[in-house]
Amino acid sequence: MNEFELIQYFFTRSACAQGGENISLGIGDDCALLQIPAGQSCAVSTDTLVSGIHFPDNAPAFLLGQRALAVAVSDLAAMGATPIGFTLAITLPQIDVDWLQAFSAGLSAMALSCGITLVGGDTTRGPLTIGVTVMGAVSARQAMLRSGAQVGDLLCVSGPLGAAAAAVPLVLGQVDEHSMADDTAEQLLAAYWSPQPQLKLGQYLLGQASAALDISDGLLADCGHIAKASHVCLQIQQTQVPLASAALKLLGAEAALHCALSGGDDYHLAFTIAAHAVEPLQQHFPEVQVIGQVVSGAGVQVVNDQGQAIAFERLGYQHFE
Amino acid sequence: MNEFELIQYFFTRSACAQGGENISLGIGDDCALLQIPAGQSCAVSTDTLVSGIHFPDNAPAFLLGQRALAVAVSDLAAMGATPIGFTLAITLPQIDVDWLQAFSAGLSAMALSCGITLVGGDTTRGPLTIGVTVMGAVSARQAMLRSGAQVGDLLCVSGPLGAAAAAVPLVLGQVDEHSMADDTAEQLLAAYWSPQPQLKLGQYLLGQASAALDISDGLLADCGHIAKASHVCLQIQQTQVPLASAALKLLGAEAALHCALSGGDDYHLAFTIAAHAVEPLQQHFPEVQVIGQVVSGAGVQVVNDQGQAIAFERLGYQHFE
Repeated sequence: MNEFELIQYFFTRSACAQGGENISLGIGDDCALLQIPAGQSCAVSTDTLVSGIHFPDNAPAFLLGQRALAVAVSDLAAMGATPIGFTLAITLPQIDVDWLQAFSAGLSAMALSCGITLVGGDTTRGPLTIGVTVMGAVSARQAMLRSGAQVGDLLCVSGPLGAAAAAVPLVLGQVDEHSMADDTAEQLLAAYWSPQPQLKLGQYLLGQASAALDISDGLLADCGHIAKASHVCLQIQQTQVPLASAALKLLGAEAALHCALSGGDDYHLAFTIAAHAVEPLQQHFPEVQVIGQVVSGAGVQVVNDQGQAIAFERLGYQHFE
Repeated sequence: MNEFELIQYFFTRSACAQGGENISLGIGDDCALLQIPAGQSCAVSTDTLVSGIHFPDNAPAFLLGQRALAVAVSDLAAMGATPIGFTLAITLPQIDVDWLQAFSAGLSAMALSCGITLVGGDTTRGPLTIGVTVMGAVSARQAMLRSGAQVGDLLCVSGPLGAAAAAVPLVLGQVDEHSMADDTAEQLLAAYWSPQPQLKLGQYLLGQASAALDISDGLLADCGHIAKASHVCLQIQQTQVPLASAALKLLGAEAALHCALSGGDDYHLAFTIAAHAVEPLQQHFPEVQVIGQVVSGAGVQVVNDQGQAIAFERLGYQHFE
C-alpha cells in the first residue's frame, strides 16, 4: 500500500463507514451498493469545498469535516430525502495523521447525526479540496422541487438567519472571539461550522410544501431561485425575517438583517406552502416562521409593514481569498 | 451569475446532460432524482483525476473528458451494473472557453457511448482536478464482487493488455508519435485516452462470473485484490496473457509483457468463472481469454508452460510529475 491507500484504509475503518441501513455493500469493491426502498428514487447531490475559497486555509480539521458533510446533506433535506450514503473525494497537500484523525472525527460526528454512511472515496495529492456526493431516497412524486410555488402560498423559513454570515470575521480570525461577552462567539461559530441539515422538517414537508431549497447563497438569492423556477414573485415581509440572536447582539438590527438576507451559509430551508398547512406545521416545528407570500410576477421583493418595496444592496458571496 | 455559474450553465446545456432513461430530474435543483429499477440496487463509484498526477498538465481537453468518465464508468462495468447518471466536480485554474467546449465534447462522446447522463455537479477555482461519481443499477444478489472467486474457477481477461502503459511515453511527449510506422501510435494513444468500459461483457457475466474487477492498477496488482478478498491464489499462465499488438510491435515481447502485467490503465475486466461457462461466453465475446486458474493459497503466481513460478519485478505506478 502506498500512503494514499493507507489513508483510504484509515477512512474505511472510521466510524462513519460502519454499518448503515440500506447499504448492501460498503467501501472496498469497485462500487458500493445502496438499497433504494421500493417506489422511491435515488436523490443525488455533490458539493466541492476548496481551501482558501470556501474555507480559510487554517480551518480546524474537525469542524471542516462536520461542515463539508452538512453542506451536502442539506441538499437532501431540501428535497425531503432520507440520507443513505456518501462518497468522499479528498485531495491533500500532505499526509498529516493528526489532521486526518480530527477531520474523520468531525465527518463521523455529522454522519452519525444525519444517519448517513461513507460508502466510497478517493484520496489524491494536491491542494486541499473536499468533494462530497450524497445519496438518499425520496418519492419522486413528492420530492420538493424549486418549481412548484403557487400564487397564494405562504413563504416560510425553518429558523433564524444571519448567524453564519455574522461569524465570518471570527472564522477569519479578524475578530478575537474572547473579546466577546457571554457565548455569542460560540453560537456564531457553531452556526458557521456545524449547520444542522433540516432533515426531519424536510421529510415532514413532503406532500405539503409546494417548493423548497436550502439557504446557501443567502435568503434573497435562494428565494430568487424559487421565483425563477416557479415563474412567480416571492414577497418577503422585512419585519418577519427571523434574525439569529447572536448576530443581532453582535451587529445590531440593520447589519444582522443584511446577514440574514444576503449572507448565505445558514442551511435553513426556505419553502412555500398552502396557508392552511402552516399552523399544524408550526405545532411540530415551532421555529418555522412565515416571512412572506407568493404573488404573481417575477423575482423577489422585500416590503415593509406598509407593503412598500424596500431596496437592498446585495452583499457579494464571501470568498476566503 | 458569476463566471462559475456560467460554466455550470454551460455543462447543463451540454449533450451529456440531456434526456437519459431512468432520470426523473436532472441538473438544476437541490438534488437529481434517479430511478433504480425494482429489485435492483444503486451502484456508486467515485474517481478523482488530478493534473500532473493522473494526467499530464498539457493533456488535450477532449481526450481528458473522455478518459475521466471512462475510468469511472469502468467500475460500473466491473460490477455488472447498467449506467444511469454521473456528477462532475471540476476545479479549474481559469476559464478557457475553448478548453471547456473540447472537454465537454469528450465527456459527451463517452457519456453517449456508455448510456450515462450528467445529473449534477460543482465548478470551483483551483488547480485542475476532475472528480466523477457514477451511479448505475444492478441486482445486489448478482453483482460481481472481488470476494467470490472459487478454487477450480478459471481466470479470464476481456481483451489484450499493455497498450495503455506502452502509450505513456507518447502521452508525455517523450517519443514523437510521427516517428512511428503505420498506426501504432494511434492505437496506443486510443488505448490510453479512450478506454472502452466493458459494460456489455459485465452485464453478460452477471450470475456467471464468481468475481470481477476492472484492470486499473495492472493485472498483477488487480488479481491480487481478488486473491485477497476471496482468500485464494490466482495462478496466471504467462504465455496465455494476451498482449496488445501495438505494444508488442513497439516494445517487443518482454517489455510488452511487463506493460500487460504491471502497467495498469487498461480498463479491461479480469474475472473468475466456472470452466463450463467459458465456451459459450467466448462465442459472444471472442476477445475473452483464459489466462489462468484459481487455486488454494494466497496471492498471485505467474507460471511458465511447465508450471514453474516466474518472479516479476513490479513496475511502479506511473505518475506524471
